[in-house]
Amino acid sequence: MKKRALLLFALLCLGNSAFAADDLTTQAKKLFKPIPSKAPSLKENPATAAKIDLGRKLFFDPRLSSSQLISCNTCHNVGLFGADLQETAVGHGWQKGPRNSPTVFNAVFDAAQFWDGRAKDLQTQAKGPVQANVEMNSNPELVVKTLKSIPGYGPLFRAAFPGQKDPVSFDNMARAIEVFEATLITPSSPFDRFLQGDTKALNAAQKRGLKVFMNKGCAPCHAGVNVGGADYYPFGVREAPATEIRPSGDTGRFMVTNTESDRYVFKAPSLRNVAATQPYFHSGKVWKLRDAVAVMASAQLGIKLSDHEVDDTVAFLHALTGKEPRIAYPLLPPSSDTTPQPKLK
Amino acid sequence: MKKRALLLFALLCLGNSAFAADDLTTQAKKLFKPIPSKAPSLKENPATAAKIDLGRKLFFDPRLSSSQLISCNTCHNVGLFGADLQETAVGHGWQKGPRNSPTVFNAVFDAAQFWDGRAKDLQTQAKGPVQANVEMNSNPELVVKTLKSIPGYGPLFRAAFPGQKDPVSFDNMARAIEVFEATLITPSSPFDRFLQGDTKALNAAQKRGLKVFMNKGCAPCHAGVNVGGADYYPFGVREAPATEIRPSGDTGRFMVTNTESDRYVFKAPSLRNVAATQPYFHSGKVWKLRDAVAVMASAQLGIKLSDHEVDDTVAFLHALTGKEPRIAYPLLPPSSDTTPQPKLK
Repeated sequence: MKKRALLLFALLCLGNSAFAADDLTTQAKKLFKPIPSKAPSLKENPATAAKIDLGRKLFFDPRLSSSQLISCNTCHNVGLFGADLQETAVGHGWQKGPRNSPTVFNAVFDAAQFWDGRAKDLQTQAKGPVQANVEMNSNPELVVKTLKSIPGYGPLFRAAFPGQKDPVSFDNMARAIEVFEATLITPSSPFDRFLQGDTKALNAAQKRGLKVFMNKGCAPCHAGVNVGGADYYPFGVREAPATEIRPSGDTGRFMVTNTESDRYVFKAPSLRNVAATQPYFHSGKVWKLRDAVAVMASAQLGIKLSDHEVDDTVAFLHALTGKEPRIAYPLLPPSSDTTPQPKLK
Repeated sequence: MKKRALLLFALLCLGNSAFAADDLTTQAKKLFKPIPSKAPSLKENPATAAKIDLGRKLFFDPRLSSSQLISCNTCHNVGLFGADLQETAVGHGWQKGPRNSPTVFNAVFDAAQFWDGRAKDLQTQAKGPVQANVEMNSNPELVVKTLKSIPGYGPLFRAAFPGQKDPVSFDNMARAIEVFEATLITPSSPFDRFLQGDTKALNAAQKRGLKVFMNKGCAPCHAGVNVGGADYYPFGVREAPATEIRPSGDTGRFMVTNTESDRYVFKAPSLRNVAATQPYFHSGKVWKLRDAVAVMASAQLGIKLSDHEVDDTVAFLHALTGKEPRIAYPLLPPSSDTTPQPKLK
């Protein structure tokens, strides 16, 4: 982490001058990439139509939770840009989870999953909330028992995982959800079209905001295809944020690595669709995008942006709102007499 | 209610002999009607594409609840045949509601809404759960404030209710939801196809079950297009059901009319898609369809069906499962800085 922090500082210093005079598109292309128009293919988990369809059903199926009330879509609502508009996730028994639900949209482009990156991919991530007692409160045995009790799922798993003797498994559940989630990408935002050569795709304020974003030092952490999501940084590089925003009990990656330099280190989130996925930060304590921009400027960069700079940056961030995937609500196979009953406690 | 109970008894007595020798299709056509292939039009609330689209968005929008976690679709899940697989509805604060969530599918064909018929139509019904503190826990003022704070909703309401000065209203919310819900019909079940002349649409067991259904006296309460949903009857015509199944505290229509003869009177529910919408009865205490059939036989008819008769009746009831509507998950307009924050308490 120390090396990375040094690199970050170097990039921040560089950021203050490097892009000012250059052609905006050229500079932006060096830092960012557009969202592709098609879902990326996943090594070791190739997508098929049958697997995506199964994953879509599982993503929406509340029977993956012990209460049979909570599905992946509860916190990663595909109608709300893949998030839930809550401070932190609300799960089993109306419990508040510890962190803000990250959007599932474009998550496939992130280097790792969760705010602390503890899951290397979406497949690993999918197994987490299903088992977390503050979220879906189930376990692999109950999930498999439930899925096997639903007659319609057998053929769907066999079609998605042909040739397997016992395809209805917790691992295959996660694999199917992963390939579905990989389709949840939002191309064609104004910024993507700008990167693809349409210089009119951003308006004047958004272009000024893009300059602020590159020149003031946001881009070192928020770059690439996801404008973030690629690496981990201390939340509070220059100045510790208010305890309200960075609660002392949540030490981020320190809880994963037990390494002192990882204290209050988090994945820099993707800023894709950020204008539609309030509230902000892992704590979900900041509701307005302009407030979030100001917090980042002071905590990460040690600067105070002018009101105009904040306005322009917010305008640029609105240009990161892409086209949402169109999803048909899945027809879930009915339960049977042997399906475990929901448990609310 | 007394007149109705007498008529019911007369029909029950008649039921035991009238249909045995007659041609099955002819007799069935006298009692039942197929689900139409198109959504019915509603007097005083004509459907337009814009109104249906708005209703679909509102149906799925959790911001109609004070927690912003619960939508109409939470309890009337369109992927689960319009119901929730719960004993009773679970709402705000994980509270258990008093009654089993009826399916929204084909509800437009019911004579009135709720188990006790206290709402005359879907439009009136839609306003109930939004305001109930055990369900969505909101109120008209908060709903309107929230909808007006979401910039994308204004144009949608204006398109759905053209010419109105202030179209974003609680009443219009309910009107839009009603026209969307009226599209949630499930035609083309095997029984519908049988009624339309395809004598092979039911298998031998299902035909025997249909005979049991008509000859033993189920049809007087469960007839018409919805195989039920048309009128109110005492739960326990011949014999009071177990207190577990008919809890003494829930007196049904008595709580609406305060009329002694309405004690433990409920709407006979539609049996459309009954095989996919367990658990059963207003209490949701019976999970297996064959158990529900046995309870009905003893409580309403004072008879005990043989195992074969129960099997056949259950087979027939499976033939009431129709084709689910295909629904595109709506892209909900994003919140703004002025949108009220969710309240979990």
